[in-house]
Amino acid sequence: MDTIRILGVDTSLRSSGVAVIEVTGQKMRALVYGRIQNKPVMTHSACLAEIHRQVDALITEFEPNEAAIEGAFFAKNAKTAMILGQARGSVLACCSLRTLPVYEYSPKSVKQAVVGVGSAQKDQVAKMVMRLLGLTEQPQEDAADALAIAITHAHQRGVPEALRSKAI
Amino acid sequence: MDTIRILGVDTSLRSSGVAVIEVTGQKMRALVYGRIQNKPVMTHSACLAEIHRQVDALITEFEPNEAAIEGAFFAKNAKTAMILGQARGSVLACCSLRTLPVYEYSPKSVKQAVVGVGSAQKDQVAKMVMRLLGLTEQPQEDAADALAIAITHAHQRGVPEALRSKAI
Repeated sequence: MDTIRILGVDTSLRSSGVAVIEVTGQKMRALVYGRIQNKPVMTHSACLAEIHRQVDALITEFEPNEAAIEGAFFAKNAKTAMILGQARGSVLACCSLRTLPVYEYSPKSVKQAVVGVGSAQKDQVAKMVMRLLGLTEQPQEDAADALAIAITHAHQRGVPEALRSKAI
Repeated sequence: MDTIRILGVDTSLRSSGVAVIEVTGQKMRALVYGRIQNKPVMTHSACLAEIHRQVDALITEFEPNEAAIEGAFFAKNAKTAMILGQARGSVLACCSLRTLPVYEYSPKSVKQAVVGVGSAQKDQVAKMVMRLLGLTEQPQEDAADALAIAITHAHQRGVPEALRSKAI
């Protein structure tokens, strides 16, 4: 049975969640999860470099085949969108340089895939992630989101190819 | 007399202008300028990787000391801001990974620095860039903008340190 490794990233400038899961058939397990924390004193450029560096290191260590990020559908205004966009740009460039295709999922579709309800709360998502992956402790919120995004992408494998989301 | 090399980038997803100028006292010359063109068929991720790759190659070849980009003050809406933000993120991460400090200038301050008028037209900027750098041909628009941004940063060197823009 084919095994695939999926990198999930919940992108933000100061605290990105990151995770790699391994999927074999219906089985999923977490290989790593955590977050990239950037201190408030760091310049935006330094934060973006750190995100790139750490995502790159995860790709080297865990060799994921595909990547998934949260779709940026919630930016309230141009300034917020720009800052989030920069963080996404750093992650997308890094993944593409390492020849990982990147897929994106809306927050609603992540909640739908993991909890079964598009309006689920963050805590519900974290609890369900914990159950699906057999974790003994509830992951920190950003890490849980990254795991949830990776799980959402894993679910896509059961969808007919023509209906799957396309790499961005 | 100190010599400094400045990388200027007019960032966009499909056609970023790039330039490196060398500044010694009042003298400036262009070492290279052009643009990074990404085809419409390329995914966003592939475009961002190409921007990163080409900016990285310029840094390797021309060894600039500092970088300058256009400030993102013109984004009209969240979607445009997100796409531009991603391109900026790729450039900022790349520069920071190569330990180049990055400064940003508003379009108005670039026009002010180069032409002397904050409301100058693109063609006036290109013509003045040509004159300031002693170029024999008018550069393509995106390349001219990148040169103008680098020139704007060069002008900052004459400004008292406390009044200079800070690295982003």
